[in-house]
Amino acid sequence: MQQRGEETKAHILDSAQRLFSQNGYDATSVAEICEAAGISKGAFYHHYPTKQAAFLELLEHWLSGVDAGLEALREGAANVPQTLMRMTRIFPVIFHAAEQLPIFLEFWRQANRDKVVWKATIAPYRRYQEFFNTLVQQAIDEGSFRATNPQAAAQAILSMATGLLLQGILDPQGADWPQVAQQSIQLLMDGLVKQ
Amino acid sequence: MQQRGEETKAHILDSAQRLFSQNGYDATSVAEICEAAGISKGAFYHHYPTKQAAFLELLEHWLSGVDAGLEALREGAANVPQTLMRMTRIFPVIFHAAEQLPIFLEFWRQANRDKVVWKATIAPYRRYQEFFNTLVQQAIDEGSFRATNPQAAAQAILSMATGLLLQGILDPQGADWPQVAQQSIQLLMDGLVKQ
Repeated sequence: MQQRGEETKAHILDSAQRLFSQNGYDATSVAEICEAAGISKGAFYHHYPTKQAAFLELLEHWLSGVDAGLEALREGAANVPQTLMRMTRIFPVIFHAAEQLPIFLEFWRQANRDKVVWKATIAPYRRYQEFFNTLVQQAIDEGSFRATNPQAAAQAILSMATGLLLQGILDPQGADWPQVAQQSIQLLMDGLVKQ
Repeated sequence: MQQRGEETKAHILDSAQRLFSQNGYDATSVAEICEAAGISKGAFYHHYPTKQAAFLELLEHWLSGVDAGLEALREGAANVPQTLMRMTRIFPVIFHAAEQLPIFLEFWRQANRDKVVWKATIAPYRRYQEFFNTLVQQAIDEGSFRATNPQAAAQAILSMATGLLLQGILDPQGADWPQVAQQSIQLLMDGLVKQ
């Protein structure tokens, strides 16, 4: 039963993700998600109290995937500059999942108009801010970055990563985005490393 | 008559912008725009053949404003690093117009699902890419930037600017965004200037 429940949830999330990406969050009804997933409304509401709850779980899933990827990439790096360069390898993974990308615009847009989604979108953002703060401080302490304001540097890294993601979503054929990401982070680091 | 036509257009665009920002592009009908603008459907279609046409004009207007602002800020700069730092002053102007910001998420999202809007969104992006390419090349020629790949540097600048804009839209209270913008571009430039 447990396993069957998990399978149903996976079907719901797959269908919800496809429909949200294609038609938008607002334009997608629970009825449509159920039809696409081949389940009853009862089954849907057994797992998710609302459409918003399914949407938030998609956001959660995506963020856990990124977190796990970044954590794995960090391992074995000798110092912070190497850690940061390794972390750019997350971009090919993100851009590879191209069919999932349009849903980000839905996350961001919905965050702008729905307090609950906003909190769920902003919380990881602030968490990443903290994460890069710590990483920059560590780089200064280990002597690989010059003395700088860690918060400002963290914000610069996060701004760049966000911009790369948005450009990759909007114009996937416009550039070799994983390569652009690597070059851009390298340039930013050139300003941070000790001369 | 000419003037009255212009006034009607301004009313249409004001109402359209407010409704697109509040309720989204899809959820906003021409009838609602007309009601909010206090005009007839005939008057709307006299000026715009479709809802999309009004949407595209809003995008056009916004971009012209940014272009004019950037052009004005460039004037009087002694070299490219100074030009780039001056250009960050566009951020307070953009962030000040906070009520206009949510419509960007609509532009970006709609670009992802509508070929015509996509072209209108991507064209200025590629134009800015060219613009920063030229600026970086100029900096290398004048000796203020070290020899670097101008395209990569231009993409880094554009990614950062895009990311700053998106963060400012999503989390206006989260930071002093004009200041963050200035610090971030400064850090990126530190990696580009000749030591």
